[in-house]
Amino acid sequence: MGFKTLEWKKGRLYLLDQRKLPLKESFVACATYQEVARAVRDMAVRGAPAIGVAAAFGMLLGARQWKSGTPALLEKHMNQVARALLSTRPTAVNLVWAVERMRAVLIRNVIRGKQALLQALEDEAGKILEEDLRANREMGRQGQILIPDGVSVLTHCNAGALATAGYGTALGVIRAAREAGKRVHVYVDETRPLLQGARLTAWELMKARIPFTLITDSMAGWLMAQGKIHLAITGADRIAANGDVANKIGTYSVALLCRAHRIPFYVAAPISTIDFSTERGEKVPIEQRAPTEVTTLQGRRLAPQRAKAYNPAFDVTPHRFISAIITERGIVQRPFRRNLKKILSGTATENGQIWIG
Amino acid sequence: MGFKTLEWKKGRLYLLDQRKLPLKESFVACATYQEVARAVRDMAVRGAPAIGVAAAFGMLLGARQWKSGTPALLEKHMNQVARALLSTRPTAVNLVWAVERMRAVLIRNVIRGKQALLQALEDEAGKILEEDLRANREMGRQGQILIPDGVSVLTHCNAGALATAGYGTALGVIRAAREAGKRVHVYVDETRPLLQGARLTAWELMKARIPFTLITDSMAGWLMAQGKIHLAITGADRIAANGDVANKIGTYSVALLCRAHRIPFYVAAPISTIDFSTERGEKVPIEQRAPTEVTTLQGRRLAPQRAKAYNPAFDVTPHRFISAIITERGIVQRPFRRNLKKILSGTATENGQIWIG
Repeated sequence: MGFKTLEWKKGRLYLLDQRKLPLKESFVACATYQEVARAVRDMAVRGAPAIGVAAAFGMLLGARQWKSGTPALLEKHMNQVARALLSTRPTAVNLVWAVERMRAVLIRNVIRGKQALLQALEDEAGKILEEDLRANREMGRQGQILIPDGVSVLTHCNAGALATAGYGTALGVIRAAREAGKRVHVYVDETRPLLQGARLTAWELMKARIPFTLITDSMAGWLMAQGKIHLAITGADRIAANGDVANKIGTYSVALLCRAHRIPFYVAAPISTIDFSTERGEKVPIEQRAPTEVTTLQGRRLAPQRAKAYNPAFDVTPHRFISAIITERGIVQRPFRRNLKKILSGTATENGQIWIG
Repeated sequence: MGFKTLEWKKGRLYLLDQRKLPLKESFVACATYQEVARAVRDMAVRGAPAIGVAAAFGMLLGARQWKSGTPALLEKHMNQVARALLSTRPTAVNLVWAVERMRAVLIRNVIRGKQALLQALEDEAGKILEEDLRANREMGRQGQILIPDGVSVLTHCNAGALATAGYGTALGVIRAAREAGKRVHVYVDETRPLLQGARLTAWELMKARIPFTLITDSMAGWLMAQGKIHLAITGADRIAANGDVANKIGTYSVALLCRAHRIPFYVAAPISTIDFSTERGEKVPIEQRAPTEVTTLQGRRLAPQRAKAYNPAFDVTPHRFISAIITERGIVQRPFRRNLKKILSGTATENGQIWIG
């Protein structure tokens, strides 16, 4: 990759500042859980798996900030830490998942003394990071068989190494196809308003020397009509139990356009993105962000002053538009409600290709 | 309107500089045909009807620049003027249409002496401007019956007073609905890369006090899925004989999304935008513009240096996605090939609503 999205070093979480890319490669160092919460809220780090990992270290930092007191008081403090982290962004379920994993370790180790507790939490946060990295590589290995040689793949937003602990979900599958010797060209949706495609995906693909063409979001349909896009693949911020996918605003349109042009639309996401407690996509909370993200760009005003704008950060793609969901445990086919459940018991063998369906 | 897109005053064509809006209201004064050609190419003026009007005055200025010589030499000079104007932008057919109208006047008056010839050309250019203004008002009057009270209308790019001699095509229909006392809310696609929606449509709607919400282009589909858009209406840069419509890139996706959600998709354009010599949409030349319009914004780099980008300025919407075409001679229904032909003989009565189909 040549870069680390998140790194834990000497008691600090270092985040590659994604707001500054591609113009500047700089880092945000977080020494407190409040700093982690701010970095997630302000999108110095973004991408569902990456903010899950960041939140895990946020929980660790929160515990390290605890001076002393009864286990009951520690628990109260940690509830506050968890709330601060969970309140940053409502849609990505990996955030909840990671915080809950850390909370479980806390509960198991709360009576072992501070040093042992902190070590257990540090081990768990490290494990969450390592597992995510491994899951991405496995998703790539599993998913790359869906990418034929010589195709052009559309992607929306950034579901790359920057959105994860490394390697990436959707971009991981593309990386793996390239590593398997296939020729792949990527059409990159710029992804307004925050331009994660133009700024982040383009940056990653250049580093990986994967050929790509940047387009505005409105061009994808026209490229499909001309037969220039062979398949689309995105990440996910939350997958409901029925297979509905919440992801970056615009994903819904991409999926619908794919359906209309008979182009496969794949979603790549780790198991930690599946939320079995959310029945259907319509139950996923959709984050509404500041209208100024639409009316301005990098501090410059685009629209007339006082122009009203709408800015949902995500949309929900109904499962019927999704060709398959690529996970680290295999490729999940329809019907998703049944097969996503199966995945919990599924295990991928080292060389095995798992099809769940 | 409170502003004039184009104005002929004392031998100069004044163009409201659309590149500077909404931040600054300034004018480009053109005293030569070369200045008009540059203003069209650089998009100080844009929108198919408006560049048609500009080109008419460009022809006039070209003739005024002619010093003296035989009619044959004048004709040669004017061919050069026409070529310079026609080469600026290939997709909008109004450009060709206006230049040919001016050329016909030239041929009819070439032997009448310079003063009479210039007067005839000035009269014709003025007529082209006046006719466009009248056509827009008539399109509005005809088309507004398609807009029920209380709806939200999606529009893409700018098909307003700024894209025409005044009043607008798609926005003209919306203006007329408002003037008829209907409540209309507009969702404005920002229209990357050049943001004609965010910059120009939003500016016009604010001036007209028509309520609107600005969105990124990728949000339209999601709004439709939520039932928040009741119909869509755009302009056109060229309508082929079969009803296929070339218009701003992204229009194709809007039309397809409308179809998928069973939302009417209307096109409003004057007869001068219909090109009976172009059989089908695929024959329309699509202007490819500089990739830097995608990779940068207002001089600021968005994507990594050397990132490749694709930048077609237009796409083609197949006639099967179009619910009706609103013209100054009536509302054209399917089948478009037959009914667009009928329009040439059609006449709208003062109070009559004409349905062609």
